[in-house]
Amino acid sequence: MSGVRSSVRVFAPASVANLGVGFDALGAALDQAGDVVVARRSRRRGVRVVSIEGDDGRLPLDPERNTASVAARGVLEMARAGGSAVAGIDLEIVKGLPLESGMGSSAASAAAGGFATAALLGIRDRRKILLPVLEGENAADGSWHGDNVFASLLGGLVLVPSSRPEWPLRPISLPFPDRLRLVLVHPDFSLKTSESRKVLPREILLGTHVRQAAALALLVAALAAGDLKGAGRAIDSDSVVDPARAPLIPAYHAVTRAMRRAGAFGCAIAGAGPSLLALSEEGPKAAAIAKAAVAAWKAEGIRATAAVHRIDPLGAREIPLP
Amino acid sequence: MSGVRSSVRVFAPASVANLGVGFDALGAALDQAGDVVVARRSRRRGVRVVSIEGDDGRLPLDPERNTASVAARGVLEMARAGGSAVAGIDLEIVKGLPLESGMGSSAASAAAGGFATAALLGIRDRRKILLPVLEGENAADGSWHGDNVFASLLGGLVLVPSSRPEWPLRPISLPFPDRLRLVLVHPDFSLKTSESRKVLPREILLGTHVRQAAALALLVAALAAGDLKGAGRAIDSDSVVDPARAPLIPAYHAVTRAMRRAGAFGCAIAGAGPSLLALSEEGPKAAAIAKAAVAAWKAEGIRATAAVHRIDPLGAREIPLP
Repeated sequence: MSGVRSSVRVFAPASVANLGVGFDALGAALDQAGDVVVARRSRRRGVRVVSIEGDDGRLPLDPERNTASVAARGVLEMARAGGSAVAGIDLEIVKGLPLESGMGSSAASAAAGGFATAALLGIRDRRKILLPVLEGENAADGSWHGDNVFASLLGGLVLVPSSRPEWPLRPISLPFPDRLRLVLVHPDFSLKTSESRKVLPREILLGTHVRQAAALALLVAALAAGDLKGAGRAIDSDSVVDPARAPLIPAYHAVTRAMRRAGAFGCAIAGAGPSLLALSEEGPKAAAIAKAAVAAWKAEGIRATAAVHRIDPLGAREIPLP
Repeated sequence: MSGVRSSVRVFAPASVANLGVGFDALGAALDQAGDVVVARRSRRRGVRVVSIEGDDGRLPLDPERNTASVAARGVLEMARAGGSAVAGIDLEIVKGLPLESGMGSSAASAAAGGFATAALLGIRDRRKILLPVLEGENAADGSWHGDNVFASLLGGLVLVPSSRPEWPLRPISLPFPDRLRLVLVHPDFSLKTSESRKVLPREILLGTHVRQAAALALLVAALAAGDLKGAGRAIDSDSVVDPARAPLIPAYHAVTRAMRRAGAFGCAIAGAGPSLLALSEEGPKAAAIAKAAVAAWKAEGIRATAAVHRIDPLGAREIPLP
């Protein structure tokens, strides 16, 4: 390993997964928001979390349970197996993302922690650390999902054919039009990912699978062709995931209807919810959709905030130390 | 309607559907083989099948049951509803495709019958006759599948988000690399589509759906990016359709293994089988794969033939009258 430095600072972007028909298979990095992790070499063996800011004390400092440190540990072990003499890593985490917001908060920390450690240890190919960052994300809730964390690490729009750690991990970067905008709307209530998983069907009919799979393929093809209308139609044809979860989100139908009226090409639950997402394009329409969604939730007595995002093309990256 | 002529002759290409992970959703038109239909104006009301060649007497002359005439009737009714004064159509069908070969024989006749009638009646936009040709294909076995017939009509590689006649039909033409070759291998035994459907699971686990859907999306993305290796990997990751059907095809594993050894990027059952298909590229490898497959079946005492196809980009088209 060459280029070992004493400390690096890394930003990893927010991300949004699922988009309805892309359930557990599709993730997109989002600009304008993310987590920051500083990694420092330490003579003390292993990975420590020395500080966390911006989490209201909710995240664990325990390095076995924190997504950033679990990812960092995997990268450190990989580097040591490759001959690195670095004994330990200290992490400082600054959360820029609210927890359980549907914006991949745990994933951004895992991606930042893993990438910072890799940068510190001179591992330059980010695809080498897919498994450690996936293991980091796994520490959040025990499930295996690469959609958020690979998007946060790699940037862009990412298809995740498999998130099983025992299988080859081969996330694919997908093309999308530059004018694509994602409107994210966050209501002021929370929804546990575990609750959101519980309502999903265990099995689906083969014919339902065929339509749902074709819709995901259509989404991918339409985005590659720059056809945002087709992409929106694909998202809206989800007949499995969002229909099952919609009852958990008060005013889901009123809000998605308001976004569609304001010009959204398609709508879906962001991640496991409760945030919602609209597909839009550059120009004034995206802000109008955001406004319409906030107003629709307000009409139901629920406060919400909204933001218009581009897809972040860079993923995790070094930023200057403060 | 303008441009009404007295007769036209149309060729519609063979097609292959499914490709494993694209079950019921993906079809590709194949060059070098297809059906020919001549449509002639008639004063006799309705559509008649006046002759069928090349089917060994197995196909129905009954216009209610023949796929070409059912498609033609739908187009004729559409034209008459639009003001056409043409009363009837006589069809002559020349089968270039063997029945139940996994090459979309019934679909090619439906596409040719529908397109010939449209050409005769001056309907120029082939997307206007999607429903009639789908209804034609339906006459073959009572099921609704646009994958073969839309590929045969439109040409190219086609994603079929829905084949339900009551829903909007929006087949999508997908990009694929010019150097793509499909090796089709036809063993000398037949397998009824109904048998091949019977072994499929009625329901699949949600996690299985996620992997299968991501594999279809990967196939679409890889072909768009010209990544034949990735496309082959996507086809090979089918965990639902081919694994269920493989036991119906003697020596399935020996033959696919032989094709992979000869350089196939991936293998799948062609349509509902028993023919098999390998993904390959231009150059000597494709012919080597074809040879290896025929030899592997021969070693099991089964005669087979094989051919290397490009994807036919044109779909149904007029050819000169003889």
